[in-house]
Amino acid sequence: MARRFGLVAAHGKPEAGQLAEEIRRWLTARGCAVAGEGELAAQWSDRDVIVAIGGDGLIMRVAHAYPGIPILGINVGRIGFLALAEREDWQRALSELVAGRYHVQEGPTLAVQLERRGELLVDGWAINDVVIRAGYQLIEVELYVDGQFVNTYPGDGMIVATPQGSTAYCMAAGGPVLTAGVHGFAVTPICPHSPIRIALVVPEQATIEQVYLSEREARLIIDGEPVLALERGDLVRVTRGSHTFRLVVLPGTNFYEAFRSKFNFQIRPEAQPSRGNERAPRSGAR
Amino acid sequence: MARRFGLVAAHGKPEAGQLAEEIRRWLTARGCAVAGEGELAAQWSDRDVIVAIGGDGLIMRVAHAYPGIPILGINVGRIGFLALAEREDWQRALSELVAGRYHVQEGPTLAVQLERRGELLVDGWAINDVVIRAGYQLIEVELYVDGQFVNTYPGDGMIVATPQGSTAYCMAAGGPVLTAGVHGFAVTPICPHSPIRIALVVPEQATIEQVYLSEREARLIIDGEPVLALERGDLVRVTRGSHTFRLVVLPGTNFYEAFRSKFNFQIRPEAQPSRGNERAPRSGAR
Amino acid sequence: MARRFGLVAAHGKPEAGQLAEEIRRWLTARGCAVAGEGELAAQWSDRDVIVAIGGDGLIMRVAHAYPGIPILGINVGRIGFLALAEREDWQRALSELVAGRYHVQEGPTLAVQLERRGELLVDGWAINDVVIRAGYQLIEVELYVDGQFVNTYPGDGMIVATPQGSTAYCMAAGGPVLTAGVHGFAVTPICPHSPIRIALVVPEQATIEQVYLSEREARLIIDGEPVLALERGDLVRVTRGSHTFRLVVLPGTNFYEAFRSKFNFQIRPEAQPSRGNERAPRSGAR
Amino acid sequence: MARRFGLVAAHGKPEAGQLAEEIRRWLTARGCAVAGEGELAAQWSDRDVIVAIGGDGLIMRVAHAYPGIPILGINVGRIGFLALAEREDWQRALSELVAGRYHVQEGPTLAVQLERRGELLVDGWAINDVVIRAGYQLIEVELYVDGQFVNTYPGDGMIVATPQGSTAYCMAAGGPVLTAGVHGFAVTPICPHSPIRIALVVPEQATIEQVYLSEREARLIIDGEPVLALERGDLVRVTRGSHTFRLVVLPGTNFYEAFRSKFNFQIRPEAQPSRGNERAPRSGAR
Repeated sequence: MARRFGLVAAHGKPEAGQLAEEIRRWLTARGCAVAGEGELAAQWSDRDVIVAIGGDGLIMRVAHAYPGIPILGINVGRIGFLALAEREDWQRALSELVAGRYHVQEGPTLAVQLERRGELLVDGWAINDVVIRAGYQLIEVELYVDGQFVNTYPGDGMIVATPQGSTAYCMAAGGPVLTAGVHGFAVTPICPHSPIRIALVVPEQATIEQVYLSEREARLIIDGEPVLALERGDLVRVTRGSHTFRLVVLPGTNFYEAFRSKFNFQIRPEAQPSRGNERAPRSGAR
Repeated sequence: MARRFGLVAAHGKPEAGQLAEEIRRWLTARGCAVAGEGELAAQWSDRDVIVAIGGDGLIMRVAHAYPGIPILGINVGRIGFLALAEREDWQRALSELVAGRYHVQEGPTLAVQLERRGELLVDGWAINDVVIRAGYQLIEVELYVDGQFVNTYPGDGMIVATPQGSTAYCMAAGGPVLTAGVHGFAVTPICPHSPIRIALVVPEQATIEQVYLSEREARLIIDGEPVLALERGDLVRVTRGSHTFRLVVLPGTNFYEAFRSKFNFQIRPEAQPSRGNERAPRSGAR
Repeated sequence: MARRFGLVAAHGKPEAGQLAEEIRRWLTARGCAVAGEGELAAQWSDRDVIVAIGGDGLIMRVAHAYPGIPILGINVGRIGFLALAEREDWQRALSELVAGRYHVQEGPTLAVQLERRGELLVDGWAINDVVIRAGYQLIEVELYVDGQFVNTYPGDGMIVATPQGSTAYCMAAGGPVLTAGVHGFAVTPICPHSPIRIALVVPEQATIEQVYLSEREARLIIDGEPVLALERGDLVRVTRGSHTFRLVVLPGTNFYEAFRSKFNFQIRPEAQPSRGNERAPRSGAR
Repeated sequence: MARRFGLVAAHGKPEAGQLAEEIRRWLTARGCAVAGEGELAAQWSDRDVIVAIGGDGLIMRVAHAYPGIPILGINVGRIGFLALAEREDWQRALSELVAGRYHVQEGPTLAVQLERRGELLVDGWAINDVVIRAGYQLIEVELYVDGQFVNTYPGDGMIVATPQGSTAYCMAAGGPVLTAGVHGFAVTPICPHSPIRIALVVPEQATIEQVYLSEREARLIIDGEPVLALERGDLVRVTRGSHTFRLVVLPGTNFYEAFRSKFNFQIRPEAQPSRGNERAPRSGAR
């Protein structure tokens, strides 16, 4: 049963701010404590849930700022894949939350370190992915897993993704979708200039090292944010992070249903699941 | 330190039988107990290691016959991916084994059940993969994970693979390679007749159900062996199996090196790993 | 302006037979000559158009029986990709036809010859594709183009497809879609057991030769029909065929629209084309 | 029989300059006229062949500067795919050339126009490819072929490639390889954020239009050169260009052999082509 809430709305989206006001009133009227963005800094560690009104970008930002607190995303963006509740459903969603009818889905994070000539320049962490990405020219990246050389990849770079991040850039680059609960990370080359191409999934315990071999412009990108221009010889080390990403999942929410509808993943849209009704009640699932 | 051995050679390969004799003498001379195929049935549960001389097919057969016992494969087949020791290396490999310089890599297995009109027709298990595979015409398979409908796939069928099986048919169908230690199974459609295509990796705890929707010829294939002709409405349920697949891994053996050489996975064959020598001594690694 | 029609309905589909009767009456009432399946054998070469009522399988059968005559397919099957008119649209479609408001889209065919120990066992032709396809076990196929060795492909076989066939098995195997008017054939390996994978498009003038290297069960399949069990050493030669495949295309019919709707190829289903109205009137299209 | 040569060496590669000197002496000694880079501007239109010493980048530059003249590339770069002669082979290559033992392989070019608010900002042409490419964030591109809407692609952009360009970025993005002589262009989305993905091949006569829908940073790249930062609403139109790209091909040169060796496209490196000797003598190849 969630009683203490944080509340964060996407900047620059008036409808998000308005909805935040409505939600604050609604929660307060039900006896809940609500901390807005200003107050959160002091109080976040005792919050049961943070309600984030926006898209996936906001959820990432909130998770970075308040690591480990369960987040419920209310989608006012375009394709909210982490933002599981749709805007028009907010009352139902919050009712479930207040009534304790939810569970928290945990996902691993990635720790990322960049070493340049022995110096540690970046020491961060990621919820979705750590990406080495070329500017407008082909680059080369060497990949090692647990100290073992895997390959040299000429192309547009390399993605290391968590399960929750696998539906983002990883899938776009042709990598696999890892559903929640898989203990592994996907390592997917971006447009490798080769007829040889395979995505790897490595265990969570793996140490994934990448050496940047080119002089050309490329960046280290963490959860979609470019953090550093790479230099030849840079070593990017990715391991399992110490934080846990926690997402509030409401009854009737279902990864496959969401994936099907948000990505139009419907090979035969007219097909009726033969076992749909008896086994997997879809009412309420959107 | 391994002292009690089982010894199995591929049938129909005279060189495998000959090598088995040599190995038996070599092991006996070093004070080890060796049970040949005839004697194994009675003694297998007390064996430390079974030495299998042949290709991957033999290792699968041995693992099915003597579940849970660590296997060292000596490759006399063409592409032995599970058979990690090459024929010419057998003395070094057995020396390591007898000296106890090895570890046992554990992999999950798959339990598979086929229900037809409520009756259980197949109750088996797999080391590599469970496959629904069309004959010469397009078939349709419905996929559910944990009771949730995923999609209806028209095409050549569907593969559920373990990590050790992911380099077999799963990779061929465009699925990901799951390295040892990943807790998940790959679910890969075979030639789906659609521009929509994605491979999924699901947690080991998942229940993967497939409903066969066509009248056309198709088979259930377990670890490469066709076990049953499918009928419309058949339900194939795959979960984590109770057995564990155990493979003997010797020092200097390395998945990535083996994958690179056996599948010629070398995008830039002339490239020298920049960190190869300091971190990952490759001498002895083949 | 089409006046002399052939009329063929799919067997075993009562609604196709009924519709054929309606269409015969409709055409006759408009002064057209109509030959049914019985009469066609004698008269087909003077027909302007053959109307085929069924799915893509029927169109292929008709095109093989009466090569070179333009065909209008009326779809009463499931996914008719060649059958461009939908059942409920038949009157509009035939009105256009009788009024001469259509064009004939021409596609190349494939000639296929199978040689076994110097003997010619198969000498046929294909509208869509020529396929070497494994039974339930991995096979090996060697590919040559214009006498040049390309590669040895272990896997499920190989597809050579025309543009009109590229949306069938070729696409399912991960190959490209060649739109009408491309002068080339797609050569796509089926589930190659390798991380190395690429589809080739070769010129229409190319000679595509495949040598079957395995002992295992496999078949030569022409336009979806298995025609022969392959034996080790068989040579399958594919070149451009002498026939032309002719499909009647009505105004408002549009490959991309059809592809989008029949294969649900809609990445963002809600997206409105920004130039849709000014340039590509979609009313009446499907 | 080639007698009048142009001679261009890659800048910044001393060995290319040195080799150019050697080649000039060698050709002059054989009575050929040789124009160096300084003299070429005046004389290029009467040259039989331009010899370009460098990598593929240089060949592209030369082909843009002197359109239509056959080019022989001598590779001193890393992976020269258009530069068909290897450095150490230069004497043999030039002997063939002088003796007239070569043919000229012709490839189509692409015309590209960019319109912004009705104004024509770019009017250029490409040998390999025209690319819309995102900076570090997802962009959206709408694709039309012959005025027909195809799809809206969120992702890293889009590639239109000629056959000679298809082994470059097109292949890297998962597109098909079009061999010489195919009359068509490949249209391949770059990392589309979707499980829906297919590469298209369209006829040479097609008009390929792309509308840039995002506000984010992206560029129009022609043959690898960024030429313009894109703005929302920009229309990029690609059609067949009026120039022809001409490449000198020497006896024993063979696309498949080159592709196999340069991209290590060898699924079974140890395999001996069963028909290799009788049909496709490989001695002297590459």
